[in-house]
Amino acid sequence: MAKNLEISVLLDFYGSLLTDKQREVIELYYDEDLSLAEIAEHAGITRQGVRDCIKRAEFQLLDCEAKLGHVRRFEEIQRGLDEIAAQAGSLLQDPGRNAPTPAERVRRIMDIAAEIGI
Amino acid sequence: MAKNLEISVLLDFYGSLLTDKQREVIELYYDEDLSLAEIAEHAGITRQGVRDCIKRAEFQLLDCEAKLGHVRRFEEIQRGLDEIAAQAGSLLQDPGRNAPTPAERVRRIMDIAAEIGI
Repeated sequence: MAKNLEISVLLDFYGSLLTDKQREVIELYYDEDLSLAEIAEHAGITRQGVRDCIKRAEFQLLDCEAKLGHVRRFEEIQRGLDEIAAQAGSLLQDPGRNAPTPAERVRRIMDIAAEIGI
Repeated sequence: MAKNLEISVLLDFYGSLLTDKQREVIELYYDEDLSLAEIAEHAGITRQGVRDCIKRAEFQLLDCEAKLGHVRRFEEIQRGLDEIAAQAGSLLQDPGRNAPTPAERVRRIMDIAAEIGI
């Protein structure tokens, strides 16, 4: 069973919508990196039971993102914030020739802040 | 039945987790501002049925926010973006005496961008 790294992010965003049992099992698998056999022993269910529980939880997390898209939205915001930080950082340095003027870079920061807002 | 303005925001964030029927009824009530009687006629259910449907949907939306807190998180980001835009705007103007230096304001922009990131 291949681990899907995207699931860790989804678990962070939507994990609290899972049942306590699902969350316990999937966190042991993704966050604590336990094997199916170890989780089975810990949770008192079969390896197949653990596998089914993880699959169902993964499906629910992917379904949440398909419906809500909040991870995608937060990631877009993060890209905007990274560009704001880079533009601001460039204002503290010698921009070199042919670079946008400070005022242009400040306006770019304002544009990004407006674009990525709610 | 008092309308809760917060519900409109929650509906925008979490509405796609409701059933189609719940979403239709609650959108007619909150977004289209129809009366319970009008929705009842439109949906072919009783006024009491409409009221129950809205109450259940409201409970689910509030429960989603209690568990996930994404609206609160987006609102925090928005406050940070508003401050970034204000700081950037101040860089385009004469700051007046005793104002933070441009470099201080640029660093404040970088700090906010780092704080409100994921």
